[in-house]
Amino acid sequence: MTGLDPLIAARLKRDSNGLVPAVVQQHDTGAVLMLAWMNDAALHATLTTGRATYWSRSRGSMWVKGETSGHHQAVVSVALDCDGDTLLVRVDQTGPACHTGSPTCFADVLLETS
Amino acid sequence: MTGLDPLIAARLKRDSNGLVPAVVQQHDTGAVLMLAWMNDAALHATLTTGRATYWSRSRGSMWVKGETSGHHQAVVSVALDCDGDTLLVRVDQTGPACHTGSPTCFADVLLETS
Repeated sequence: MTGLDPLIAARLKRDSNGLVPAVVQQHDTGAVLMLAWMNDAALHATLTTGRATYWSRSRGSMWVKGETSGHHQAVVSVALDCDGDTLLVRVDQTGPACHTGSPTCFADVLLETS
Repeated sequence: MTGLDPLIAARLKRDSNGLVPAVVQQHDTGAVLMLAWMNDAALHATLTTGRATYWSRSRGSMWVKGETSGHHQAVVSVALDCDGDTLLVRVDQTGPACHTGSPTCFADVLLETS
């Protein structure tokens, strides 16, 4: 039992590991902060606690963003895409989103047109 | 041979299917349009043709976004995340991004705080 609303659980299309990617966006600036992964329990926590919660694939455990760094994400909205296989989580980020200290995880620009 | 710059190819961390998720964002409004997937050849095409190009997991083939719908995405920038396993593609979208006709694929709101 993950606690996730069965009506939402029925619409989720998970990968072979039971996970769905979550695009995380700063709600006011629109900056894309990071991509993380959720299982049903992480989505339930995100929807009900107000704190963005993910499944850490590297640690193999639930991960409340900021629980060690203090760089929390207050949840503003959560949406599911047309295929039911991706989430968009709009948040209010405290501090930098990236573990490198960058505001976002997408600091490595491969191409920028003029 | 995919044509992808070997220095970029060396930094990509692909999943077991050789794919990397690409978050697609409208460059001026900041709207997150969709999540798609790229293999090395799709990333090479995106970086060199100016048209966002993906790997369609459902069709099992390269997919120039808009090739049938006309709803192209002109590439504005491409960035790689800190782990090398996710791309952020900023585009100028022609028409709706979603095959449903919605402006974005994230029309299904699960939670919205006041």
